[in-house]
Amino acid sequence: MSYQSEQLREEKVFKDPVHRYVHVRDRVIWDLIGTPEFQRLRRIKQLGTSFYTFHGAEHSRFNHSLGVYEIVRRILENFKEHPDWNEDERLLCLTAGLLHDLGHGPYSHSFEKVFNLDHEDYTREIILGDTSVNRILKRVDPKFPQNVADVIGKTYSNKLVVSIISSQIDADRMDYLQRDAYFTGVSYGHFDMERILRVMRPMDEQVVIKATGMHAVEDYIMSRYQMYWQVYFHPVTRSSEVILTKILHRAKHLYEQNYKFKLAPLHFESFFKEAPTLEDYLKLDESIVMYYFQIWKDEDDEILSDLCNRFVNRHLFKYIEFNPNHQFEQWMELHKLFTEAGINPDYYLEVDSSSDLPYDFYRPGEDEERLPIHLVMKNDELRELSRESDIVEAISGKKRTDHKLYFPSDFIEALSDDSHIKKRILEILEG
Amino acid sequence: MSYQSEQLREEKVFKDPVHRYVHVRDRVIWDLIGTPEFQRLRRIKQLGTSFYTFHGAEHSRFNHSLGVYEIVRRILENFKEHPDWNEDERLLCLTAGLLHDLGHGPYSHSFEKVFNLDHEDYTREIILGDTSVNRILKRVDPKFPQNVADVIGKTYSNKLVVSIISSQIDADRMDYLQRDAYFTGVSYGHFDMERILRVMRPMDEQVVIKATGMHAVEDYIMSRYQMYWQVYFHPVTRSSEVILTKILHRAKHLYEQNYKFKLAPLHFESFFKEAPTLEDYLKLDESIVMYYFQIWKDEDDEILSDLCNRFVNRHLFKYIEFNPNHQFEQWMELHKLFTEAGINPDYYLEVDSSSDLPYDFYRPGEDEERLPIHLVMKNDELRELSRESDIVEAISGKKRTDHKLYFPSDFIEALSDDSHIKKRILEILEG
Amino acid sequence: MSYQSEQLREEKVFKDPVHRYVHVRDRVIWDLIGTPEFQRLRRIKQLGTSFYTFHGAEHSRFNHSLGVYEIVRRILENFKEHPDWNEDERLLCLTAGLLHDLGHGPYSHSFEKVFNLDHEDYTREIILGDTSVNRILKRVDPKFPQNVADVIGKTYSNKLVVSIISSQIDADRMDYLQRDAYFTGVSYGHFDMERILRVMRPMDEQVVIKATGMHAVEDYIMSRYQMYWQVYFHPVTRSSEVILTKILHRAKHLYEQNYKFKLAPLHFESFFKEAPTLEDYLKLDESIVMYYFQIWKDEDDEILSDLCNRFVNRHLFKYIEFNPNHQFEQWMELHKLFTEAGINPDYYLEVDSSSDLPYDFYRPGEDEERLPIHLVMKNDELRELSRESDIVEAISGKKRTDHKLYFPSDFIEALSDDSHIKKRILEILEG
Amino acid sequence: MSYQSEQLREEKVFKDPVHRYVHVRDRVIWDLIGTPEFQRLRRIKQLGTSFYTFHGAEHSRFNHSLGVYEIVRRILENFKEHPDWNEDERLLCLTAGLLHDLGHGPYSHSFEKVFNLDHEDYTREIILGDTSVNRILKRVDPKFPQNVADVIGKTYSNKLVVSIISSQIDADRMDYLQRDAYFTGVSYGHFDMERILRVMRPMDEQVVIKATGMHAVEDYIMSRYQMYWQVYFHPVTRSSEVILTKILHRAKHLYEQNYKFKLAPLHFESFFKEAPTLEDYLKLDESIVMYYFQIWKDEDDEILSDLCNRFVNRHLFKYIEFNPNHQFEQWMELHKLFTEAGINPDYYLEVDSSSDLPYDFYRPGEDEERLPIHLVMKNDELRELSRESDIVEAISGKKRTDHKLYFPSDFIEALSDDSHIKKRILEILEG
Repeated sequence: MSYQSEQLREEKVFKDPVHRYVHVRDRVIWDLIGTPEFQRLRRIKQLGTSFYTFHGAEHSRFNHSLGVYEIVRRILENFKEHPDWNEDERLLCLTAGLLHDLGHGPYSHSFEKVFNLDHEDYTREIILGDTSVNRILKRVDPKFPQNVADVIGKTYSNKLVVSIISSQIDADRMDYLQRDAYFTGVSYGHFDMERILRVMRPMDEQVVIKATGMHAVEDYIMSRYQMYWQVYFHPVTRSSEVILTKILHRAKHLYEQNYKFKLAPLHFESFFKEAPTLEDYLKLDESIVMYYFQIWKDEDDEILSDLCNRFVNRHLFKYIEFNPNHQFEQWMELHKLFTEAGINPDYYLEVDSSSDLPYDFYRPGEDEERLPIHLVMKNDELRELSRESDIVEAISGKKRTDHKLYFPSDFIEALSDDSHIKKRILEILEG
Repeated sequence: MSYQSEQLREEKVFKDPVHRYVHVRDRVIWDLIGTPEFQRLRRIKQLGTSFYTFHGAEHSRFNHSLGVYEIVRRILENFKEHPDWNEDERLLCLTAGLLHDLGHGPYSHSFEKVFNLDHEDYTREIILGDTSVNRILKRVDPKFPQNVADVIGKTYSNKLVVSIISSQIDADRMDYLQRDAYFTGVSYGHFDMERILRVMRPMDEQVVIKATGMHAVEDYIMSRYQMYWQVYFHPVTRSSEVILTKILHRAKHLYEQNYKFKLAPLHFESFFKEAPTLEDYLKLDESIVMYYFQIWKDEDDEILSDLCNRFVNRHLFKYIEFNPNHQFEQWMELHKLFTEAGINPDYYLEVDSSSDLPYDFYRPGEDEERLPIHLVMKNDELRELSRESDIVEAISGKKRTDHKLYFPSDFIEALSDDSHIKKRILEILEG
Repeated sequence: MSYQSEQLREEKVFKDPVHRYVHVRDRVIWDLIGTPEFQRLRRIKQLGTSFYTFHGAEHSRFNHSLGVYEIVRRILENFKEHPDWNEDERLLCLTAGLLHDLGHGPYSHSFEKVFNLDHEDYTREIILGDTSVNRILKRVDPKFPQNVADVIGKTYSNKLVVSIISSQIDADRMDYLQRDAYFTGVSYGHFDMERILRVMRPMDEQVVIKATGMHAVEDYIMSRYQMYWQVYFHPVTRSSEVILTKILHRAKHLYEQNYKFKLAPLHFESFFKEAPTLEDYLKLDESIVMYYFQIWKDEDDEILSDLCNRFVNRHLFKYIEFNPNHQFEQWMELHKLFTEAGINPDYYLEVDSSSDLPYDFYRPGEDEERLPIHLVMKNDELRELSRESDIVEAISGKKRTDHKLYFPSDFIEALSDDSHIKKRILEILEG
Repeated sequence: MSYQSEQLREEKVFKDPVHRYVHVRDRVIWDLIGTPEFQRLRRIKQLGTSFYTFHGAEHSRFNHSLGVYEIVRRILENFKEHPDWNEDERLLCLTAGLLHDLGHGPYSHSFEKVFNLDHEDYTREIILGDTSVNRILKRVDPKFPQNVADVIGKTYSNKLVVSIISSQIDADRMDYLQRDAYFTGVSYGHFDMERILRVMRPMDEQVVIKATGMHAVEDYIMSRYQMYWQVYFHPVTRSSEVILTKILHRAKHLYEQNYKFKLAPLHFESFFKEAPTLEDYLKLDESIVMYYFQIWKDEDDEILSDLCNRFVNRHLFKYIEFNPNHQFEQWMELHKLFTEAGINPDYYLEVDSSSDLPYDFYRPGEDEERLPIHLVMKNDELRELSRESDIVEAISGKKRTDHKLYFPSDFIEALSDDSHIKKRILEILEG
């Protein structure tokens, strides 16, 4: 039997708290899970610093990746006998689902911003480069690695396959909404996935939804909306991300200034130069980052030391509502006051803005990352979701942004009570 | 208002997936949670290496400690107006619940075994030594740290307080059974805690259970039984623990041999000498351990390198049933065969035995760690649980032991097929 | 001790699948639950004929009434020490919550429509009339029955008390959404009630919500929206209601024509005359109705017999989308065709329209049944929910209506295939 | 296509709170669900009078029957490709699962006892007699009705088929434990059915369990044990059953005495004569019974009237522990005292004994209703469960009996306080 169709002698199951069981029968999938590159995802949290807000959110990307694989598997189980589905794409689909987040590094969001990286590039490199993952994929077929990379990169010719992994209602989103809700413990994030899976239909270019399942999809869209604002953009999480970002900036700055680190930032050097090789990149995970931060707590540089202390011991910045577009003068004044007070505003004053588009229909001429959701009516006509659903229509295309100003309230409190500076800072911050 | 009775201006709540919400009103509790010693528990997994078996089991001891606190809080909420409860012990009880696991280190089970440590000693030292935790406790009362340590050490004069934290049905066990079930996703571990809390009554020396709640307690005992055998003693978890233990042994051995590490084991030195100070101890957490193991994967010492590789990339030992008491000759022969094959049996052949006593009644003259559970009947008579419950009686005092032999099947497979050694090893292993 | 403050020697608990436990300590509440008028609610299903669509929906109004009581109890537990809450209103509030649905009869919706009744009048009569409930309430205070009736009737002077029982986010709605979701098994209907209860604050005239809890309220509003369209207005349920309504019309018609029933409709007579006394009303419950329908299956009148057969054996009408406002001519033609085919359109052709307003803000000058939801901001300012919430704003005030045409497809299929009538009917129905 | 292999054009699904969805594809199954005999199960509660103890337990046998069908369907889905499974038995198995409880009447337990009936005889008659169900089964094959009856009656030649429906771990039990737990809301009754289904294997004569699934089976056995004692044998439920039994006895007695009923017991006559025809039997359901009891509340016979009042309005008997084997003298004395006090002991004093055998292995020579559970080991050897499982062994074969004495405490309280009789009765009852 060829490697690509080889089945395990006995099905392997993973006990999964979200999907109850993850089932693996394909040898290829089993082998991929066993690679160092995939096991590395155990050392990267799915929600980065969110565990500082929701203590249950300590689950890893390994968890999520298995979950996405399992959802793809269930979708394809339903497609199996459908005339519009080509069973030859099955393994490709499963593999792309499993590996779609392979390139994530520790606290990706912050690292990508500070060091100008894109985890999708690394996903691609891991799949195509000299890795255990690549060797397994090549055994399937020499062209298989490229196909997997193309599906994840959304450039694969069969758009139906792409849409199972990346669309506005794909296996990725369905897993993370449920999983993140489960581990944080919030009551949002529930929707009837079993029903959604049952009303999904393969079509030429995309997965569509039988119109009778519209309400389950509405529920999913609402879940997503609530998860974004209640969990993903939680202001406390953003506070820890601000601190993390500042640590990275400071360490880079010190490195560039030839500062003498007690612990030389070996794992970080190529990042500071914004050119980590694949090997460098794979070596960095959250345990490594935490190791450095714990040592750096005792560095002589006061800013680096203070920020690491804050991060490791969850001594976060406070925040207020603050819209830099309308409050530019206050921003300038705060900047000046902080400097006068000896609190470096480059590291201790930050506006963070988060925004989300809960659902979007296709607008011709625009650059759309994810396809809109289409319902298929009784007469086989396709209708874009927001035209049928009042609720979705109501929130469709409406971008919402939240601005917060972050600062170390303990530093401000520590200023002399008589000082004009303290009074004025408090005046501005307390509105 | 005194510090010990100071209330937060607004109740703080933590979203908890197991108890829904953890509520904090006492300033002391809030301050303790914010200490570096308590935040450190975020970097220590509640179930050590179990996440290699159950991928969801990535939750930390921080999680569990908050959960124990919350259960104690709910118990005391019910005791509040009971004549046998002294409300002055409230803060002590809450604090002991919160801090009872403070001295746990990374992978405690293995570290304690290899380096002759006891996490309870460190819990005590953190509470009584020069720490942020101690400073907060002293603000309550100079004797408060000692009282907290005594409750956790089970030597406190008021045995009722002790039994809330440590007995066969205490807040600790009730939290971990439910929490570990939640995060692993297994279907065991459920019992009606709400009912148990409602039938708990404070008595002179212990918490007792109203007889009408007996069945909920039976269910709890059964949960515990199943969790031990299905989760805590899972043979795959024990495989990863065997490897971990071997790494520690090997590193210590190399250190003692003055082996030149590429990464000197600074964080480990005092452990190798079996005399870590409190400061050394607190510096070690799972991110630090993982950092070393990842570097040591590339050490020249083949054994250390191989074992670290196995641990980091989950390339575990296989296992078979094997009772060393009855199979001593086979054990000796395997030892010899491994040596001949060039596989060092000190590191690559290990019997692991786990045993559990699901419930125990009090046997006079014996050294009992945990009190038996007493039911209080309608006429206020006390009866030991196993005398009333058929199921509990059936499993009471019955110790069960499971023996497994662990070995690297890949090494054995890699031996030459012609070799007599390989054949004989396989003969023995395959029974 | 006075009756109104009498506490049970031991708290009574009801195991409840939705709220886990319902707790009763007040003697008055316990006595009310034991009255025949309250026990009668066990014989009336909470969701009428919905069990023909969702087989799990067999739960009674007894269930729901206990649930509302329990939610009120939990709300008041939180209000207990609040300066704006008058603890003297506690028993009144609990009682009104428990009894608010006392006047519901079997399949209220259909009975009220056909016989021009209002269950709220009967709730009032049971509370004020010569009943066991009234005798208990009078023991509390001679004015107590009237106060309870006023709270339920929304005319009580303390509007805060009224709003706990009847508003857009009251104990009634919070119970039925969760309960109906639980018993039907749908995945809608979940929201974080524990959080909502914690952010509720008593104010002068109403219960308001702390702004930090807005998202939990949004989730509740969305739940409600989904439950209406997915459960309460399900077209299959409406089909069984159409049949039920037709049975009642037919029986009344026959009675007025002095038709000789095999089983004289004794329990129905006063309803046919649209003047049931309280005694008549209380005698009718779903077991009585089902008894008659089962006997009437064998009546000589073909229409009555057929309709009863359909109802008892769930042999329902089929339906299509049909808007009588735009399809009046087709309606007229169908009416004529049915008559020609010998299928009496008065009983076998019906348009049913359902509409819902998911959330409404207050519009001055309009007759509003339920108050809008107000958030209380940090500065104690009140803001109406839809001004703060994008999602709620999006659906606020938008009435949606669904029209369906119901008919017996088996009768039409049974017409001769050659018949012009059949062809034309099918043409219209199949659009 | 033949009727027996006819598939619905589109799969029908029932939303089920326990199994999420019940899936129907076979035309035969769909048609059977639509029969009046099957729909009648909606009017018979699964747990009889248990709703007087657990208010959520209002679910019908219709619910449960669909659930059993669904579990059988899932079992067979797993067996589909197994060499020891004969796919020709599939429809038979599904049908037997669906119809196995078809002969249940209202409050079967009490009716069977009082009128010497056996619901299994009626299940058989409905399947083989002149019914809609029989007509459908005959369309499959003239022998099909007999085969279905044989599977349900456990006399079918293929014992494997029988064991799916009736064994110690069959689809029937797996459904009712979970369903009854769900509707009552108790925390018992949970076990990992998904895992059990996955470890079930068809063998010659029975379904066996892979040894690796033993713990899930243990959990199921424990669930069953707890459900029996916590739910099924709850003393309050037995109180309502005692009253129900007494009503039936009294009505029969009055009928035999030619008592003039206000409402003649037409539906009961053939039951009183212990010879109901199938037609009589099918006409009786819980709505009919409740109709009579409500009318009989106003009968002149004081005993009948009082008992019906108690049943309808849940005014139950109180109970104490009472073992008639050891307390025979007290029983005799109470009997006498009741008679003297004018309280007819035939209707107002009753000992009820319930007993359960939680699990039983096969004992040669004994008459065993249900097969023991067999594990299949790695080497294909079969081992009876209690030999492998400590817990199961501990409770195996141990019959437990609970005796309670029931009496109307209100009648006793109403006796004159001076009376010697009252004092003595209370002395005995209060032990």
